[in-house]
Amino acid sequence: MTIKQYKVAVLGATGAVGREMLAVLDERRFPASEVIALASTRSEGEEVLWGKRPLKVRVATPEAFDGVDIVLASAGGTVSRELLPEAARRGCFCVDNSNAFRMFDTVPLVVPEVNPDDLLWHDGIVANPNCSTVQLVMALQPLHQVAGLRRVVVSTYQSVSGAGQKGMDELSAQTIALFNQKPFEVKVHNARIAFNVIPHIGTFDAQGYTDEEMKLVYESRKIMGLPELRVTPTAVRVPVFGGHSESVLAEFERPLTPAQARELLAKMPGVSVVDDPKQRQYPMPIDAAEKDDVFVGRIRQDPTDLNALAFWVVADNLRKGAATNAVQIALLAVERGLVRGAGRTAKA
Amino acid sequence: MTIKQYKVAVLGATGAVGREMLAVLDERRFPASEVIALASTRSEGEEVLWGKRPLKVRVATPEAFDGVDIVLASAGGTVSRELLPEAARRGCFCVDNSNAFRMFDTVPLVVPEVNPDDLLWHDGIVANPNCSTVQLVMALQPLHQVAGLRRVVVSTYQSVSGAGQKGMDELSAQTIALFNQKPFEVKVHNARIAFNVIPHIGTFDAQGYTDEEMKLVYESRKIMGLPELRVTPTAVRVPVFGGHSESVLAEFERPLTPAQARELLAKMPGVSVVDDPKQRQYPMPIDAAEKDDVFVGRIRQDPTDLNALAFWVVADNLRKGAATNAVQIALLAVERGLVRGAGRTAKA
Repeated sequence: MTIKQYKVAVLGATGAVGREMLAVLDERRFPASEVIALASTRSEGEEVLWGKRPLKVRVATPEAFDGVDIVLASAGGTVSRELLPEAARRGCFCVDNSNAFRMFDTVPLVVPEVNPDDLLWHDGIVANPNCSTVQLVMALQPLHQVAGLRRVVVSTYQSVSGAGQKGMDELSAQTIALFNQKPFEVKVHNARIAFNVIPHIGTFDAQGYTDEEMKLVYESRKIMGLPELRVTPTAVRVPVFGGHSESVLAEFERPLTPAQARELLAKMPGVSVVDDPKQRQYPMPIDAAEKDDVFVGRIRQDPTDLNALAFWVVADNLRKGAATNAVQIALLAVERGLVRGAGRTAKA
Repeated sequence: MTIKQYKVAVLGATGAVGREMLAVLDERRFPASEVIALASTRSEGEEVLWGKRPLKVRVATPEAFDGVDIVLASAGGTVSRELLPEAARRGCFCVDNSNAFRMFDTVPLVVPEVNPDDLLWHDGIVANPNCSTVQLVMALQPLHQVAGLRRVVVSTYQSVSGAGQKGMDELSAQTIALFNQKPFEVKVHNARIAFNVIPHIGTFDAQGYTDEEMKLVYESRKIMGLPELRVTPTAVRVPVFGGHSESVLAEFERPLTPAQARELLAKMPGVSVVDDPKQRQYPMPIDAAEKDDVFVGRIRQDPTDLNALAFWVVADNLRKGAATNAVQIALLAVERGLVRGAGRTAKA
């Protein structure tokens, strides 16, 4: 048997998500003939690991994409806007984890378990949703299919790894400084994050919402194909190293019991139900670390509305919220023959 | 001029809230002829501070309340159930911070800025609401009076001081142990709290809600006099030492703009509006520490409902959420002549 193999580039390979992408490519035995690590000149020559294989980081230039079949990008919006059209023009299938193209009408925004068919209309670039959106729609979709989703109220508890390695380093440094009564810096987060919570991630719009909050509105609508979906978001940074949590209230057109919801969620690929609260079984970020699943628990009826459920969703924001979802998109595109690059044929 | 002075007992004086009660009695120059500190036999002989005055802790027995005019209690439900009826029988005016009597029809549940007149029908015991309820109703009441409150969805970010000094000690100990890669205990909170969030405070009911969550429902209804008020609560412990935060969505019968809400909240005694997000001005627990006010910010329209507002409420749970509110209740009772004990008359 012969299988196609692909030349894969990870753009932003030295970042927290980039490193995780390389790990997931290896864990999932992605059919890669070669993986190259690209980043800015600042990181040139650094080494990153694709599984156990060290890769020397090369500078991300348009020419670096010559001969590449698949690009997984997590280098920020500016870099993606500059380089991914160049890569797409060279025939690359690009999965972009930045915010640059997510709301473009010509760019699918995909969670493979939720809207795989949106991949069909890609034009070289597919967007990976924001971390907090991925885990939200993974929990909402199976319930929506049965009960018809009408409205969502969501408050997040987002870890510092959402701000990358430097976000994690700042939490560490501040914590140590506070315990030693030493001064510390506030540079990455919008205020001191150690032993604090900050109701501010990203930048504010004229209505008083952050872009991080509005991603939950616009991205959920696009992925779920519900342009009128009502979403009221609050995004909050908490002093947790990894793993985002979300307190969700979902209103449906039809009644849905917690037992039905548990059953539907248990059948959803990529979702784990952890919901035996009297036995202290509920999702928590420390338990979600390094896992690919989205964990749902605390599923209960709204006390005043049979058509509404409250629940709690946790996922590793660097995995399913970013790297894992991106690799899954690429795998799905490969399976469906949607990668335009020829691919290299090798003996298996 | 002569003013009445009262003999005050603080029951549970060695706890985190008890110590704060003694501090607030001093700060507010409570008209006390004498303050006595009561606790269990375990704490007998310990010293606590009423302002700068050291008090020797005495054992809380029924007889200890002989001659006492006012009791401020924060010693847990069991102790309150046992001792406060004894104190009331001896003519004491009791303010109880435990959950023991809050939902009794014969016991007013009071936030002085919200429902002061409920004090009128007290029968010796007045209940102090749960910390997370106090700050919630302080923010809701001025908006309700103008727009008619219909529904509340609230997710909390509660600090470890809600579990007392031992709750704070556990966060410290776990944090230090993790940084030193040492083992640690999980005893006070329901799971590791350091660098984690736990969607579990208190005990679960058959519907999957915790008692901590249902306090937000039942207590808000009772204090605001809205027995049908819809409240959907989620209570979550976060690794913050002091200060509870709440993400609130409030639906009203009539439209209310963020500007109107800011104006109404700014006029509410005990509330501070901190709401200039582009200048990074929003409430945070580290800023609320040791303050008596309830801080409200991030006030914005629900993107899909002109009758609904989202906002963010922070308060020091040991101050307005507990000790300050209790002392305010006692002061109000004194001002209104509702303390049955004679009081001692002294020259001012």
